[in-house]
Amino acid sequence: MKVKNAAGKEIETSISGQSFIPFKGGKKHNRDSKIVRDIETALRKCGFKSGMTISFHHQLRNGDYVVNNTFEAIKDIGCRDLRLAQTALFNVHKPIINYIKDGVVTRIEGSVNGVVGDFISTNNPLESPVILRSHGGRWGAVKSGELHPDIAVIAASAADCRGNATGLIGESAFGNIAYSPVDAWHADKVIIVTDNIVNYPSPFREIYEGLVDYVVEIDQIGDPNKIVSGSLKITEDPMKLNIGKNCVDLMEAAGIVKNDMIFQAGAGGISLAALKYLGQRLKEKNMVAGCSTGGLTEFIVNMYNDDILKQVNTCQCFDTVAVDFVRNHQEAISTIGEYSDHTMKGRNTDKLDAVILGATEVDTRFNVNVNTHSNGKMLHGIGGHQDVSATANLTIITVPVFRKSNPIVRELVTTISTPGDIIDAIVTDKGIAINPKRKDLIDKVSGKVKIVDIEDLKNIAYDETGGPIESVIGDEIVGITKYFDGTVLDNIYRVLGD
Amino acid sequence: MKVKNAAGKEIETSISGQSFIPFKGGKKHNRDSKIVRDIETALRKCGFKSGMTISFHHQLRNGDYVVNNTFEAIKDIGCRDLRLAQTALFNVHKPIINYIKDGVVTRIEGSVNGVVGDFISTNNPLESPVILRSHGGRWGAVKSGELHPDIAVIAASAADCRGNATGLIGESAFGNIAYSPVDAWHADKVIIVTDNIVNYPSPFREIYEGLVDYVVEIDQIGDPNKIVSGSLKITEDPMKLNIGKNCVDLMEAAGIVKNDMIFQAGAGGISLAALKYLGQRLKEKNMVAGCSTGGLTEFIVNMYNDDILKQVNTCQCFDTVAVDFVRNHQEAISTIGEYSDHTMKGRNTDKLDAVILGATEVDTRFNVNVNTHSNGKMLHGIGGHQDVSATANLTIITVPVFRKSNPIVRELVTTISTPGDIIDAIVTDKGIAINPKRKDLIDKVSGKVKIVDIEDLKNIAYDETGGPIESVIGDEIVGITKYFDGTVLDNIYRVLGD
Repeated sequence: MKVKNAAGKEIETSISGQSFIPFKGGKKHNRDSKIVRDIETALRKCGFKSGMTISFHHQLRNGDYVVNNTFEAIKDIGCRDLRLAQTALFNVHKPIINYIKDGVVTRIEGSVNGVVGDFISTNNPLESPVILRSHGGRWGAVKSGELHPDIAVIAASAADCRGNATGLIGESAFGNIAYSPVDAWHADKVIIVTDNIVNYPSPFREIYEGLVDYVVEIDQIGDPNKIVSGSLKITEDPMKLNIGKNCVDLMEAAGIVKNDMIFQAGAGGISLAALKYLGQRLKEKNMVAGCSTGGLTEFIVNMYNDDILKQVNTCQCFDTVAVDFVRNHQEAISTIGEYSDHTMKGRNTDKLDAVILGATEVDTRFNVNVNTHSNGKMLHGIGGHQDVSATANLTIITVPVFRKSNPIVRELVTTISTPGDIIDAIVTDKGIAINPKRKDLIDKVSGKVKIVDIEDLKNIAYDETGGPIESVIGDEIVGITKYFDGTVLDNIYRVLGD
Repeated sequence: MKVKNAAGKEIETSISGQSFIPFKGGKKHNRDSKIVRDIETALRKCGFKSGMTISFHHQLRNGDYVVNNTFEAIKDIGCRDLRLAQTALFNVHKPIINYIKDGVVTRIEGSVNGVVGDFISTNNPLESPVILRSHGGRWGAVKSGELHPDIAVIAASAADCRGNATGLIGESAFGNIAYSPVDAWHADKVIIVTDNIVNYPSPFREIYEGLVDYVVEIDQIGDPNKIVSGSLKITEDPMKLNIGKNCVDLMEAAGIVKNDMIFQAGAGGISLAALKYLGQRLKEKNMVAGCSTGGLTEFIVNMYNDDILKQVNTCQCFDTVAVDFVRNHQEAISTIGEYSDHTMKGRNTDKLDAVILGATEVDTRFNVNVNTHSNGKMLHGIGGHQDVSATANLTIITVPVFRKSNPIVRELVTTISTPGDIIDAIVTDKGIAINPKRKDLIDKVSGKVKIVDIEDLKNIAYDETGGPIESVIGDEIVGITKYFDGTVLDNIYRVLGD
């Protein structure tokens, strides 16, 4: 059938068995500014109401003002029974405790570092347990709809009037926005909160305008001194330095210290020590590493500048040197999805030769705890721990065998954060334990490094400390650690004692 | 109920009314190379079979070898009845005519520039008409599933063994891969074809490994001399130079030549002339434009280098200078989705102050034809024509009133590519016609530029040429122009004469 369309042409509506809809008219797009007066206005325009899920990223860390400011606006609106889907909370977010007490926040899915975790551990104040996921696990959960944010509030150190937003420039720069792209794609409404409106178009745009509903300018999104560290320091503790050196010895024995090697080491004292020794080893051998992944520090930037590292991939900047580096090397930018979305056909950590990770406890089955202290308190997040453990060829956990009177190597970890299945080696001050599943690795490094049985390490720990103190826990579940595939690794119980 | 999971922990499967699945075990990810021997092997591993839809990008333009090489492999496999979903075909793709004759290709959705379009126009050899969409319209159709590629074959001038792929480096560099991200996200299987395997990880990766199934290395993906132009030239035709100058006069009269202005002008002779005059005008006024969008040429790079343009956004590089620029200014990189996905909350062309576009014909209702010649032959694609016409504040079409004996301004265009609703001005060698809907614009520029009635332009064209020659067309529909929202603007009929 021929129909005259809005452009005045006769067109067929059915051709070769397919139906076609006639043109109904065209118009110019909306090009207005998306800036609104304040966070409350933005939330109201988004139709924010009780029962909703609201998400945030944690890249302003302990310097963040955006979560607290948003909750002040929520208090003014009068919403309750919210699910908080932040990537992580820090001590700066202590006010959240009051919102929990008042019934404003009744569910949390995200890391609860420090005071909020402590409060939840000892009081069990929520309707359901905190869900703890790895970076990649959270990305996958938001993508699949398991964790659907109604509203995503995204802090940016610069944004333009149409919502192109970045963490790379401005007084509050914190590095590329890496956690929020998945929230921006999947949340029903997206609000950018910045303290720095720049000319359109913003030259950097980890979040682009097509994803954004509203932009809010506030005085300050955070305290620059607490957002990124001015300068991180390598440990001076000889025991920790020694563990760092042992990591590099193990890597070398395994044949991993080589040209184009890909490695990850974080911002902890032992990791930084390991980086120092790795750099020395590369120079001695006249070799150049291929790429580093994970959080970026001055120490890795120095390796790049010293021409012993060709390339950097990063999702998170830990210091100001790292932020400056990424701003000038945009090829270093990676999203959490690229880094660790396990539902894809690959991640940019898949070819990691070695990763060096910390732990609060490990056990004789090579399970790792990074979430709770040995007293059972939920005080830390999983981060990328599971994600890179599953991808690296050599996953190294660094721990002292015991800390003061607490055995770190033990029969069973208080909480499983990363399963022993994907841990290859535990490097301690008393020797290196290798997962018996990795016979190939044991064969390769035997005689080159001091291999010890994990049971022996546990025995040393128990002998020196008198063994683990039974933590006083109840039967109420306050937290759940999930594996990145959505299954449950462990339950975290309410702590009754202190 | 408590269940012991694969990590050896007792966990609750039901808490606060929610169900939880116990951990079933973890394992290391696959980190193998994705490189396979040849295109045929990759297609076979992807389960390629008759009836499927296969997609390609056109960024190697008339230098492309990848489409033809892939069809040679398809011929060897023996598949038929395929739907070809390339972004555009050029004269280099003449072999496709034989695949159409042989029933290997029976449907095409994508631009058919030159010989293939001519063949289809005169022979109507396909099972259903060619679907022509704008860049943004195609992106939206792939995203929505209206055009679902079973297999996406993506040409890259460099890629690593895991599929990180780019068009920015290597002998066959063609600029950032901008068209294929949507194919890579939505196709069931993705094959990267490159002539340049680089160390993992590739420093540039417009397509990242998480989206890629297989990587194939071939001798050459294209002829570098035909992929990008060595050097484009501004027209020397005084009539065309004059049209270019009139565009800038109109922009100035409309108050658009100002600091931070955002503009787009393509690689055609008149557009390049307009850029030259725009640059001169900015310098005279001591002003600095904010951003350019669209295809990038040396002429725009020169404006950047001359400090009269702050920033560049681009989806396509037209010459080698542009490729070099984007490699060194990654903030210039934009995908077609960011540029023109009309289903999003905004595009990076929404704040365009002015765009200068060409046409094969225009009509008195301001409709524009870019797809067919006046004889009815389907010889060109829509490109971004509709997309930016709908976003720019001032959409300028540049045409001579007539070409030889053919009236260009006419009663009704042979084919509607972009509806008059979103066209603001037609700048010709005989004056400027402004869409009567834009009273605000008419008021602003009256007395400053030579405004003429579009009917008068048509009359001049008809007087000088004797009016349009009736094209000899049949009643078989060989092509359909769609608006970016999926509705039909026009039908293109078989051409019976020559």
